[in-house]
Amino acid sequence: MSLRVGMIGSTGHIKYVMDGLPGLEDVELVAAAKAIPEDDLKSVRNHEAFTDQTRFYEDWRAMLGEEKLDIVSVCRPYPMNAEASIAALEQNIHVVSEKPVATSLDSLAKLEEAVQNSKARMTAMFGMRYNPAFQATKKAVEAGMIGTPALATGQKSYKFGKRPEFFRNRETYGGSILWVAVHAIDYVRWAAGVEYTQVAALQSNLTKPDYPGCEDNGGV
Amino acid sequence: MSLRVGMIGSTGHIKYVMDGLPGLEDVELVAAAKAIPEDDLKSVRNHEAFTDQTRFYEDWRAMLGEEKLDIVSVCRPYPMNAEASIAALEQNIHVVSEKPVATSLDSLAKLEEAVQNSKARMTAMFGMRYNPAFQATKKAVEAGMIGTPALATGQKSYKFGKRPEFFRNRETYGGSILWVAVHAIDYVRWAAGVEYTQVAALQSNLTKPDYPGCEDNGGV
Repeated sequence: MSLRVGMIGSTGHIKYVMDGLPGLEDVELVAAAKAIPEDDLKSVRNHEAFTDQTRFYEDWRAMLGEEKLDIVSVCRPYPMNAEASIAALEQNIHVVSEKPVATSLDSLAKLEEAVQNSKARMTAMFGMRYNPAFQATKKAVEAGMIGTPALATGQKSYKFGKRPEFFRNRETYGGSILWVAVHAIDYVRWAAGVEYTQVAALQSNLTKPDYPGCEDNGGV
Repeated sequence: MSLRVGMIGSTGHIKYVMDGLPGLEDVELVAAAKAIPEDDLKSVRNHEAFTDQTRFYEDWRAMLGEEKLDIVSVCRPYPMNAEASIAALEQNIHVVSEKPVATSLDSLAKLEEAVQNSKARMTAMFGMRYNPAFQATKKAVEAGMIGTPALATGQKSYKFGKRPEFFRNRETYGGSILWVAVHAIDYVRWAAGVEYTQVAALQSNLTKPDYPGCEDNGGV
């Protein structure tokens, strides 16, 4: 019996899930649903993993209700990810969520509770962990080559370019530290093998007044 | 009439002051005093700016009382810099202080008050400003080549090596952000031409248990 995969939305790294599907024998993309009404799902529909057998849904809740899915990929505008992940976990469907998995402490707590109460598992799209440099770093730390890491730094920037409407406001976007810096927050902890105990951070919008809710710089 | 220069202590970048003296006609190093009783002032005594005419003092307060100085260089263990700078400013002697110029908000406030009430001027040994890269950065910003800077990062690390006793305790050392990161705090503000409005920082001692008061890592 095949693993039955569903897609919710087309924001971000859908390829982390979709690129693997055509090469696997026992996995099928049974359905794909819009993240929001404006989502055209074009990048999903154009991918070779999307076939004539893949059913298309306007409403992701309808998809979760009608399909028997084993795994679902959640790629909605970021503050909406937790809602869909929780709905899937409540049906014991495994979740692969775009990051950030949540954009408020409240929604994060609800998501953690849903993971605890579900028979399914959840992971986030922290693809940078699979970059050879970070793999090598983790191995070097585990082999005791550098002792216990005392300081690690990371830096990341994206070309702003043309961004979807939801990037304009903090409420629909979530924040640049959660979206960009979260990669370094994740891989530093993962590769160094040490836990965070305190955090200090600042961010602001200085150069993109038409995207007031999108912080264009920040530090953690 | 020559400018009469005095040295207090030998901690840090005394060369910023001493190297210039032999090449200047109207300046003389009239006196040098220990920063603390244990200070051997060796690096001052061995410098070519220190001559047979330079008077040596065990006590810097005695030097300030007996000599008529125009400028004094303050290079004491860091938490002691403010005390000597204030004493010099009260006598209207110009001050060139090693950084940090103060290590507590209280001593900084007293130092600022002393600068306000003095006819003399004060500067700190932020020699990195004169590095060609930072000079070029400042010129590029002033010429409008990059617009208003939105983000600047700096990184600095020193080999720990063997450090004087006063580095062991926070009370006698002052802190690594004040000692090391202060360079970046200064040159970012200076070169970018923008002011700080908020600050977040963390530091800790992880690898040098015999120097518990010397933070071996930190971020601002």
